[in-house]
Amino acid sequence: MTKSNGGPHSFNPHYVPSEFLSRVSNFSIIESTLREGEQFANAFFDTAKKIEIAKALDDFGVEYLELTSPAASEQSRLDCIAIANLGLKAKILTHTRCHMDDARIAVETGVDGLDVVIGTSSLLREFSHGKDMDYIAKQATEVINFIKSKGLEVRFSTEDSFRSDLVDLLSIYKTVDKLGVNRVGIADTVGCATPNQVFELVRTLRGVVSCDIECHFHNDTGCAIANAHAALEAGATHIDTSVLGIGERNGITPLGGLVARMYATDREYVMGKYKLHKLRDVENLIADAVEVQVPFNNYVTGYCAFTHKAGIHAKAILNNPSTYEILKPEDFGMTRYVSIGHRLTGWNAVKNRVQQLGLTLTDEEVKKVTAEIKALADIRPRSIDAVDQLLREFHAEIHGESTPGSPQAKRTSETNEADESAEAATNGEANKKAKVDETVTA
Amino acid sequence: MTKSNGGPHSFNPHYVPSEFLSRVSNFSIIESTLREGEQFANAFFDTAKKIEIAKALDDFGVEYLELTSPAASEQSRLDCIAIANLGLKAKILTHTRCHMDDARIAVETGVDGLDVVIGTSSLLREFSHGKDMDYIAKQATEVINFIKSKGLEVRFSTEDSFRSDLVDLLSIYKTVDKLGVNRVGIADTVGCATPNQVFELVRTLRGVVSCDIECHFHNDTGCAIANAHAALEAGATHIDTSVLGIGERNGITPLGGLVARMYATDREYVMGKYKLHKLRDVENLIADAVEVQVPFNNYVTGYCAFTHKAGIHAKAILNNPSTYEILKPEDFGMTRYVSIGHRLTGWNAVKNRVQQLGLTLTDEEVKKVTAEIKALADIRPRSIDAVDQLLREFHAEIHGESTPGSPQAKRTSETNEADESAEAATNGEANKKAKVDETVTA
Repeated sequence: MTKSNGGPHSFNPHYVPSEFLSRVSNFSIIESTLREGEQFANAFFDTAKKIEIAKALDDFGVEYLELTSPAASEQSRLDCIAIANLGLKAKILTHTRCHMDDARIAVETGVDGLDVVIGTSSLLREFSHGKDMDYIAKQATEVINFIKSKGLEVRFSTEDSFRSDLVDLLSIYKTVDKLGVNRVGIADTVGCATPNQVFELVRTLRGVVSCDIECHFHNDTGCAIANAHAALEAGATHIDTSVLGIGERNGITPLGGLVARMYATDREYVMGKYKLHKLRDVENLIADAVEVQVPFNNYVTGYCAFTHKAGIHAKAILNNPSTYEILKPEDFGMTRYVSIGHRLTGWNAVKNRVQQLGLTLTDEEVKKVTAEIKALADIRPRSIDAVDQLLREFHAEIHGESTPGSPQAKRTSETNEADESAEAATNGEANKKAKVDETVTA
Repeated sequence: MTKSNGGPHSFNPHYVPSEFLSRVSNFSIIESTLREGEQFANAFFDTAKKIEIAKALDDFGVEYLELTSPAASEQSRLDCIAIANLGLKAKILTHTRCHMDDARIAVETGVDGLDVVIGTSSLLREFSHGKDMDYIAKQATEVINFIKSKGLEVRFSTEDSFRSDLVDLLSIYKTVDKLGVNRVGIADTVGCATPNQVFELVRTLRGVVSCDIECHFHNDTGCAIANAHAALEAGATHIDTSVLGIGERNGITPLGGLVARMYATDREYVMGKYKLHKLRDVENLIADAVEVQVPFNNYVTGYCAFTHKAGIHAKAILNNPSTYEILKPEDFGMTRYVSIGHRLTGWNAVKNRVQQLGLTLTDEEVKKVTAEIKALADIRPRSIDAVDQLLREFHAEIHGESTPGSPQAKRTSETNEADESAEAATNGEANKKAKVDETVTA
């Protein structure tokens, strides 16, 4: 693993003086699959499924679980109570409006804390130092004092923070910080923020409040993971995630994507906190529950995340995996696959396979058989079995002897030459290929 | 559409002085589905499919198409010739090693330019001002002069730029800039870079070379879109994309994600350049060709990208869509859907549906029927048809009359109450739902 020495700002001397505020190596995850995730179009979790998800996430190692407000429905309230009583290591939060009606119900459920949020973005966007501001401050004060009087953790968040007036934002955060909230929350509710904006807002807020700072990023414009990283660089302490990013619209910072990002920034810290090899199981659990496929290009667990294809890449990977991998697949319980039966293949990758099969060919011979593979693959890609067959036949022709024994050699080329693309199109097959791969790259 | 006034740095006074270098409103896309995308595990494009893809991307409006090196295989060479001769509006590039063998083949294909790249990252990472540096400079000089002598565009890129020595990088870029390349390229080949690192490197490079700057970002750690945005903020001029992000491993900056991001930054500019309503067709073309599903959470075109569920969101969306949407669905040929048959629903969303159906209920009555919907949905979510049926029956009970005529009212609740989650799980159904939605939100 080639870790980026010098931290995340190795090309960024401007940030070095304030590096001490960075929390990239000291953060907590607030896992919101059971709240934000329940707002995903397909999501409907019954009590048993919620408990299964809560236990899986707790086992993975997230620090907090956030649940749907007990004020949403009677079953939501009962589920809060059930999960709060599981005795998990993770702290249990519920997410409610900043309103006494909701707070009164929530504090009786046995949760460890309340994440309260101002109910409407338009309110915050439209007020400016007048009656609305006083109204928010008054309501927040009552709710926060009530929650604190019950001995529970409390976070106060605005909505749509990146389209709110900066002075108003800082003013309300300063007010609730003085009331003794545990965290203030910044939310990019519509998914419009960029990492530069996030960095500046969090850095500014870091100078205004003394409490922790939680961030919540929607992914409508593809910045939810990068924004989380920028927030931590600026001194945020808590990041909201959901498994596969499920949530309103196309969702929020995905748990798997965030751990991939933070692993690349500080591998030891992330590996010490989270059971990364369980990520795939957690994702499959959620994908089944909400009836979606894990995206083909998903971080870490997408079936092609560790597939190398171009000849130039394959060559380097075979020499030293870190040349083309910032994530070590084995750290996530995954395996690498070097694809060679296509027209972009290279002779170094083919040579490696020749050696794996125990065949003896000169470099010139390998180059010749590589040209044959390219010519065949120009018509259609070839499976690894088909390539092996071709290599054995080529070897036999040159050396005039039978090929080294292998059950694969006995297969007919008809069954072997299944289209590799079609083979790879299912996760099950990808797993099979991943096993082949171990022999390619061991 | 609420545009972020004051540009992408509205909370970022530090960047204002150098805002004039930003290219967020003046950039070009180098679309690499036919090069990087061909390195995706599943990709195999025959000539007809390549031509179909090239025409679709040209019609969408991308400025450049990048093709696989003609040195990769004989068919690759023939395909370069075929596409270069289509007479497209987009400029045609091919991507080759910085090597005379490849350059000689490429200049004969009729392409408009060559994107040349130093062949190995390890080479660049290990050299330091010695023999290797001279070797690279000498090779680059010969290749660049040769391409320029043929009157073609030339880009010179390093690989793995973010793990390369900064001084060496700047030195080689300065050398090739003096040789008169059209662009230098920065590549995050392993997907390790963060937006802050990108901003700093591009900003530094912007002061060193006078030519254009192209950036290529892999997405292993989820920053490929945000990095592209940061690069443009710092003065980069060209961004590499592929449709759905397909490429080596989990791919690069996706075309759809980039246009969503840049639309949020400058809607008018992006809408003036690209036919956004054709994005879905282009993505479906590629998804079919490489046999993958468009991810459920895909930018813009994922089936839930414009689905609103939580009561608080639904209420605001019904009042003013921009409260929870930074992208206008109609700008992309998409439609909005407000989901109401679930336990997170709210009475404002239900009231809106009541009005759509031509029913007359007081607010108190709507709150009562909303409680009924929540109670039913606590057991399992209800389809829009089932909710409509329930609203009509509730209305009839109160008003003691038959419900306003509607073919839906005649359906049995048995067939109507299909599980909404299951319904939503296919794109076809999502389209059906999107139509329902028009009536909800019109």
